[in-house]
Amino acid sequence: MTLFENRAAFLDALAAMPGPDAGAIAAARARQAQLTKPSGSLGRLEEIAVFMAGWQGAERPRLDVVQALVFAGNHGVAARGVSAFPVEVTAQMVANFAGGGAAINALAAACGADLSIVALDLDRPTGDIACEPAMDEADCLAALNAGAQAVKEETQLLFVGEMGIANTTPAAALAAMAFGGEAADWCGRGTGLDAAGVARKVAAVEAALAFHAGACTDPFETLRRLGGREIAAMAGAMLAARMRRIPVLLDGFIASASIAPLAAAFSAFTDHCLAAHRSAEAAHGRLLEHLGLEPLLALGMRLGEGSGAAVAVPLVRAALAAHGEMATFAEAEVAAGSA
Amino acid sequence: MTLFENRAAFLDALAAMPGPDAGAIAAARARQAQLTKPSGSLGRLEEIAVFMAGWQGAERPRLDVVQALVFAGNHGVAARGVSAFPVEVTAQMVANFAGGGAAINALAAACGADLSIVALDLDRPTGDIACEPAMDEADCLAALNAGAQAVKEETQLLFVGEMGIANTTPAAALAAMAFGGEAADWCGRGTGLDAAGVARKVAAVEAALAFHAGACTDPFETLRRLGGREIAAMAGAMLAARMRRIPVLLDGFIASASIAPLAAAFSAFTDHCLAAHRSAEAAHGRLLEHLGLEPLLALGMRLGEGSGAAVAVPLVRAALAAHGEMATFAEAEVAAGSA
Repeated sequence: MTLFENRAAFLDALAAMPGPDAGAIAAARARQAQLTKPSGSLGRLEEIAVFMAGWQGAERPRLDVVQALVFAGNHGVAARGVSAFPVEVTAQMVANFAGGGAAINALAAACGADLSIVALDLDRPTGDIACEPAMDEADCLAALNAGAQAVKEETQLLFVGEMGIANTTPAAALAAMAFGGEAADWCGRGTGLDAAGVARKVAAVEAALAFHAGACTDPFETLRRLGGREIAAMAGAMLAARMRRIPVLLDGFIASASIAPLAAAFSAFTDHCLAAHRSAEAAHGRLLEHLGLEPLLALGMRLGEGSGAAVAVPLVRAALAAHGEMATFAEAEVAAGSA
Repeated sequence: MTLFENRAAFLDALAAMPGPDAGAIAAARARQAQLTKPSGSLGRLEEIAVFMAGWQGAERPRLDVVQALVFAGNHGVAARGVSAFPVEVTAQMVANFAGGGAAINALAAACGADLSIVALDLDRPTGDIACEPAMDEADCLAALNAGAQAVKEETQLLFVGEMGIANTTPAAALAAMAFGGEAADWCGRGTGLDAAGVARKVAAVEAALAFHAGACTDPFETLRRLGGREIAAMAGAMLAARMRRIPVLLDGFIASASIAPLAAAFSAFTDHCLAAHRSAEAAHGRLLEHLGLEPLLALGMRLGEGSGAAVAVPLVRAALAAHGEMATFAEAEVAAGSA
């Protein structure tokens, strides 16, 4: 639904992003204190319920519409041997998504999410970020809008995932540009790269950081130069969600890197995000720290596709079930504790 | 269904417990290797699928019948001021369970579990473990059998929870007797105890360990002396599950402590258990290490009732969905990786 007409509209939306509903947060906190359990005993489930209340603007938030968006793109930098898989796999996996055979098909169904796949010009890889911008301005805007327009107005919780052979390389570059550190700090094994492959990835990210140094002057420009189509689409979708106060369950390393430029410019950007999981990609934990997010799960997953977020959706459902359905001490005639 | 006719029958069952189906494990591992994802990229979800295959004896395990059992009991040691809540709350919460207003009602429904509540002689608290055995032999056997008989034959995954004001005290005593260490190492804040309450709890556990030292000669005797009715029922249910190769999702500190005497005597006892979570009760992490289990979740929960296990059920569902429904590389015509 949301359309960013140009680069300035995207940046203006980011600067004007709304916050949560303080009244709903207070009402949800008050309700939590009366439920038949020791105060605080549901741990992070209590925090999740209050978070969801704030973004949905309701004392008892609901989860009838969970939307999953998976964006796919191809990357010029793949030619540098930075992935364990050949680039043809991106299109093959998009066909697998369409056929219902991928992990995200099973996991989205298991968590009750509506899944859509958006393939972005797979036959036209982005520029090689090691020596040129990934996209021109029109391409980047189109990708951001592909993400933003895919978000449905009625969505109550959004998660975004990706498929794009080699895309941990632009993700590492985005994280490094946003939060500093050496290229090697942000480069891991991806889908299963060997040591030589990791070395090629580090070299590509070092080259990219050197080539684009000084030119990444705003989040749009950083995404345009160092990102990719599916990465920009993820960022566009998560910003569009924020504009409508739709909470986001943030997936793994690529999803987190896609919003790194936004969060580096506006640290409050991640306020509408819950980190679903910490992936096995080594740098993801550090990236989440920079984003100010504590992961709900740490199951050693490193698949992408939004799979980590899908696995965390039931935690949000559990939090809202307890919050919405439990009796209060008064209703149940249970004595409250002394502590 | 299972009935332990006497103490010896319980101990014999423990000594004769079956293992998982090696053929089903091998078949599930082979299937995992062919699914359209980088090998290992679903992390612990892959391990869960293989674990479930082994205990269900099926290459593609199912989760149509999840059973939740919550046992309730009262404790003589409560008179020593070791809980933040008055003992009347045990019965009040059982009424709340019956009325559908407790956390476990909402969480069991959210995860698709069949919930049963078994209240065990609430008007007859156990003996004060600090100076006498909790139960006589007949009482302990009755509690073990109440647990064992509640397990349904058709159950595909079991979790057990509890309600019993003051029951972190016998749990701490059981853990200390099973695995050593000081009483203070095993005593935390329970449902919200203040420092003086924790000191009373430590003193009670120290007294219990001293009083029963040398007498806890087998797991039955340890449960009889240091446990409680709901605690023995949990142990009975989890042993009955093992006898039928039903996998168990292990809840928090009390559930873990209930099987500590069994696992101390037979370390393979926990082979059919997945640790659902690490609770906020400080000693739970250490107890899980002694049990050889790595928790799936760590959400700061400390409610009991089986609530942590209920929240983890969807992780098992996700694991089985991916394992059972994904396409293989050959089926989807996707190229496998080079690494």
